[in-house]
Amino acid sequence: MTTPDGSPADAPRVPGSPSQARAPARADGAAAALAALAGDLGDRIRFLVELDRLKLVLRRTLLSDESRRENTAEHSWHVALLALVLADQADEPVDALHVARLMLVHDIVEIDAGDTFVYDTAGRETQAAREEAAADRLFGLLPDPQGPELRRDWDEFEAGTTPEARFARAIDRLQPLLLNHASRGAAWRDHGITADRVRRVNSTIGESSTALWDVAQRVIDDAVARGWLAEP
Amino acid sequence: MTTPDGSPADAPRVPGSPSQARAPARADGAAAALAALAGDLGDRIRFLVELDRLKLVLRRTLLSDESRRENTAEHSWHVALLALVLADQADEPVDALHVARLMLVHDIVEIDAGDTFVYDTAGRETQAAREEAAADRLFGLLPDPQGPELRRDWDEFEAGTTPEARFARAIDRLQPLLLNHASRGAAWRDHGITADRVRRVNSTIGESSTALWDVAQRVIDDAVARGWLAEP
Repeated sequence: MTTPDGSPADAPRVPGSPSQARAPARADGAAAALAALAGDLGDRIRFLVELDRLKLVLRRTLLSDESRRENTAEHSWHVALLALVLADQADEPVDALHVARLMLVHDIVEIDAGDTFVYDTAGRETQAAREEAAADRLFGLLPDPQGPELRRDWDEFEAGTTPEARFARAIDRLQPLLLNHASRGAAWRDHGITADRVRRVNSTIGESSTALWDVAQRVIDDAVARGWLAEP
Repeated sequence: MTTPDGSPADAPRVPGSPSQARAPARADGAAAALAALAGDLGDRIRFLVELDRLKLVLRRTLLSDESRRENTAEHSWHVALLALVLADQADEPVDALHVARLMLVHDIVEIDAGDTFVYDTAGRETQAAREEAAADRLFGLLPDPQGPELRRDWDEFEAGTTPEARFARAIDRLQPLLLNHASRGAAWRDHGITADRVRRVNSTIGESSTALWDVAQRVIDDAVARGWLAEP
């Protein structure tokens, strides 16, 4: 049996691999203790303390100063700011604050499912099932209406059929592209990713914003010209 | 001359001390290079890449698993989720999404001004001036209307006079209180903070939400009972 990233299931976990995200028992106990103090708000406080674990899920992208890998919680904040600052660049009109809401919620499932690298073909085959189970458990911790509301946001992002969800998916690609350029292609180089794959994966941006896809293509071409990204 | 945290100005910087937040020249160059590729969107892309630095600003709070200190970007994401999940607990009606927007923006100034520990009396004397200068520079990177919009959000949070800003300030206190309890009082112990100061600083919560202040008081009392927080 292998994990979604192709390593044996009993091998030491690579930080950020899809199979390693569940946190230790200490944190479970801490969330339960706080929930017990919160009375009627116990379920919500438990969920909110459990969210802390998203800060431990590592992505493949490095920060722009190349000091360390980015985690999913800070990524979620960053893309929410992209939503507020770039919403007028969508080809169809979008509600910027609704896009920001989708960005805040879209990766919460990684607390259970881990981050799946966008170029990890094997991991992406099992990603939908892993994330669906995670959504059931995590949003299921919350009462009505908060649980169903956040679940609806996640479903909207995943389906990608509203203008807001399409734009959310575009900026979710643009942000790591910017960081990969800023960090001189470190994540591409570490994982042997070539320019054709970067162009294909990021073409999603063009499904929502012609202007941002133009920027993305210039960023990719410049990375190739500087030798940070190899042609196949 | 001393820095706001009481250390000599020329001493090695403590991570997260108010005076250390400006990032190295490498990151400046990376943001400028990306801005040059972005044409008309250059100012906005430069700002968005510069935001990456908020992930390097460390707060005093530990994560709930006690593995490391929290940074300001992931804190901003976490409190935005508190806004979405707890908004109905405000004593006055608030727009949850507007509170989330305030949370996303409220700490961006720490890129220049650093995080000021809520119990750092000396640091808090200079905090307003440092953060005002940071707001001028950072939001000034953006064109109209994005720059003035984010500046207005930050001003609203700072003034604390709207129901949304009062609630934003309340959950900005509640979140570290939850993490300090989850991490068994590590930040309080490390900095010699006693229960009377915790009660005084967090009483802000009661100015917006009676229900959340009730929860907060139970969390503080429990931390005292468990020996994680000392009475003076």
